[in-house]
Amino acid sequence: MKTAILRARLLEAQLDLARCQERAVILLLTGHAVTHKGRLVNELNHWLENRHTEVHALAPSSEERERPYWWRFWRRVPDRGRIGIFIHGWYGDALFARAERRLSPGAFRDRLAEIRAFEAELAAEGVVLLKLWMDIDRPAQRRHLQALQADPVRAWQLNDTDWQRHLQHAVIDALGREMREATAADHAPWHRLDFRDRPAQLRRVGALLHETLVAPPARPTVVPEVVPAVVPEVVPGEAPAPPSIRRAEPRVAAPLKKSDYAERLVEAQGRLAINAREMARRRIPVVLAFEGLDAAGKGGGIHRITEALDARQYRVHRIAAPSDEELALPWAWRFWRRLPADGRIALFDRSWYGRVLVERVEGLAPEAAWRRAYAEIREFERQLLAHGAVLGKLFLAISQEEQLRRFEARAATPHKRHKLTDEDWRNREHWEDYQRAIDEMFARTQAPGAEWALIACDDKRRARLAVLEQVNRRLEMRLASPH
Amino acid sequence: MKTAILRARLLEAQLDLARCQERAVILLLTGHAVTHKGRLVNELNHWLENRHTEVHALAPSSEERERPYWWRFWRRVPDRGRIGIFIHGWYGDALFARAERRLSPGAFRDRLAEIRAFEAELAAEGVVLLKLWMDIDRPAQRRHLQALQADPVRAWQLNDTDWQRHLQHAVIDALGREMREATAADHAPWHRLDFRDRPAQLRRVGALLHETLVAPPARPTVVPEVVPAVVPEVVPGEAPAPPSIRRAEPRVAAPLKKSDYAERLVEAQGRLAINAREMARRRIPVVLAFEGLDAAGKGGGIHRITEALDARQYRVHRIAAPSDEELALPWAWRFWRRLPADGRIALFDRSWYGRVLVERVEGLAPEAAWRRAYAEIREFERQLLAHGAVLGKLFLAISQEEQLRRFEARAATPHKRHKLTDEDWRNREHWEDYQRAIDEMFARTQAPGAEWALIACDDKRRARLAVLEQVNRRLEMRLASPH
Repeated sequence: MKTAILRARLLEAQLDLARCQERAVILLLTGHAVTHKGRLVNELNHWLENRHTEVHALAPSSEERERPYWWRFWRRVPDRGRIGIFIHGWYGDALFARAERRLSPGAFRDRLAEIRAFEAELAAEGVVLLKLWMDIDRPAQRRHLQALQADPVRAWQLNDTDWQRHLQHAVIDALGREMREATAADHAPWHRLDFRDRPAQLRRVGALLHETLVAPPARPTVVPEVVPAVVPEVVPGEAPAPPSIRRAEPRVAAPLKKSDYAERLVEAQGRLAINAREMARRRIPVVLAFEGLDAAGKGGGIHRITEALDARQYRVHRIAAPSDEELALPWAWRFWRRLPADGRIALFDRSWYGRVLVERVEGLAPEAAWRRAYAEIREFERQLLAHGAVLGKLFLAISQEEQLRRFEARAATPHKRHKLTDEDWRNREHWEDYQRAIDEMFARTQAPGAEWALIACDDKRRARLAVLEQVNRRLEMRLASPH
Repeated sequence: MKTAILRARLLEAQLDLARCQERAVILLLTGHAVTHKGRLVNELNHWLENRHTEVHALAPSSEERERPYWWRFWRRVPDRGRIGIFIHGWYGDALFARAERRLSPGAFRDRLAEIRAFEAELAAEGVVLLKLWMDIDRPAQRRHLQALQADPVRAWQLNDTDWQRHLQHAVIDALGREMREATAADHAPWHRLDFRDRPAQLRRVGALLHETLVAPPARPTVVPEVVPAVVPEVVPGEAPAPPSIRRAEPRVAAPLKKSDYAERLVEAQGRLAINAREMARRRIPVVLAFEGLDAAGKGGGIHRITEALDARQYRVHRIAAPSDEELALPWAWRFWRRLPADGRIALFDRSWYGRVLVERVEGLAPEAAWRRAYAEIREFERQLLAHGAVLGKLFLAISQEEQLRRFEARAATPHKRHKLTDEDWRNREHWEDYQRAIDEMFARTQAPGAEWALIACDDKRRARLAVLEQVNRRLEMRLASPH
């Protein structure tokens, strides 16, 4: 194909991508130093309609450093219809940190596993990936470095690390090979670009990108599991068996007396206030996910927590229908974007578990999507914990009879009527389906540091105390660890 | 009203606010140290449904420091339906910086004028404001500080600055009075809360907030002008007379020869590459707004700019229909959010001028909205310049005959057909209305550092060179200044 024809076809394919808004494309370049990655990206970008492209070369901000590692990449995933070009992206950090021994071999392999999971999740959500390894042999790299250094006009292109990376050429070469082998996939293939073929590189990349744009996308249905070699010390070794809503007994023998409740509430909230302040001081983020049956008392439980907190420290996120900006991005982004900075507390009133609960039961998500969600969720939570966050997952359950009583009470009370919707009644019809989905969720997302707490809520007072107790316990476990 | 009734009514009013999603509310507290602002906010927050509130106490991030001052507040404006509670907000910084002489008297007054403009713009866009000054007299403040210091349980509440602010009580008192006088408005009233009335404060604030929620909002139709006393040295003293599209001659004597064009293009792009690199080195942000008649060649002009730039440095923002997240916030947010970090370049393909062009002519914005937009835009651009940004505003014009020729050529060329929409033909019918709107825009938004360049585009080659020349000249003017 002539270059002019290739350019025209590539542009046409890009405009189709922008028009359909079904997929996004990520083109990632990494590899050896002084291989003209920047120049290649510039040239390619001139072939494209740059209203629909974005180029990312990372230097993490303070907001990024205060959140789990992958947040900086999640926030840069392009919208459907757009092409995101990443220089080094999530590979450069892994590669050079390992080369400089800032990452242990185990941590490097863990990072590669995280990359596999991240890319599979993106691909499953319609983000097409194309990855380029920019290659150069050691003598050519040396010659090129020397030529650049001698050229007064271009010497500024060299930076301090280029020579260092030249000295580590063999290490980077070996790590690059390991990295590519570990992360090649149908949905995220690697291509090697040799420095000697430089004049043809642009055409080659243009052709690869064109191919990627017009080919039917490979969408994985399984997100690979990350089994880390390096486990953060703050995560306990083993999780107890998951709870079961079908085997649980939501009712209690006798309701708690009001005076006993008031006393124990004050005590628990006092403890929580002290614990939360200590989290702020030690800059530990806290993520609390509240799920539960309708009318089980999520709002009341959350309120008893926030009563004890400084309003500057927390934020309640109510997860409802996604915005159109969220719909243009992979599903998980709507949760990533709400993660708290270090020392802050995010309370999720409904959470990322919606996918395997309401979206599954009501058929709002395709089966493939909710089936792979378990692994995606496990990985999401693992990354929160790896960042040092405390994670609390609370499921509030009530019996069918108690739920009916509360619905009827709401319908009869003017200022509570807004809390009751047609959907609530509809959900009740799927009671059995929900029970099955809930128990599967418990079983498949129970993990060390990410244990579920099933809280029986037929007695509101006991339930609220149990919520506080659960949150306190999780914070205190974390505070007891020396990190 | 009994407290229980007040609480119930307040909650009801808040839920109405959340349901209607028409307005947002900002409650701001500032004033003397150790007046229990945090505690009051906590207590009030417990009265509210905290899924619809957010509390902000600021500590600017690196991303915030790299953008114009007001970005940090714009990004925290609550969505319609929500209540944002700000501790100190945009007042604390002004107050304490002036008290500590980090702001000159002139800069302090400028800040107050910016606050007036910001609050008027928010109010005009449906954000209701309520501001509280927390008062305490000097002896009471001293007693309270001593008591806190002596109390081992509460001593942590004191921070280093509290004593310093106590010593400056008289200064803060006087500045607070000046600040309140300068920024009181029907749409953003001040209320003074005395420390001695502490037990009644929560009720008072609850009642004020309730009143604010149920009262018809005061919506200003005029945004006050900021005439700064302190002019940044990088801004030139006077702007030339604005251009006029009706008096301009878009046609040129003879088209530029291709070989001359190619030579001059290479030269201009080379200059731009050097200038842009220098902007990155000196961490100066650049904002380029491209407006123009349909088919005048905005895309081509932008492309000739970006060809010369490093793709990592710039981003093209095409301004089209707002997202639903943008619709939930004041109009200006969609532009603020796209401002570049220091050293970066943002190219706007259509811009904040849409409000006084297409939205005005097509009746998409109410007359009051586009009428006040001129002042809002002047202030927006003034803030960009005050932050040290370079601003380029380019208007690309063609004659009616040339536009028709280009439309017909587009309709006849398959791969250009997507560029031509029904809207383009419709806009042509409003030719005269557009001419009037354009000239009014030129006249009303011409300002030092924010001058318009009207570029005749009937000859594409000359037009592209003129675009490059204009951008180069603006960058070089800035680079010639020593700051």
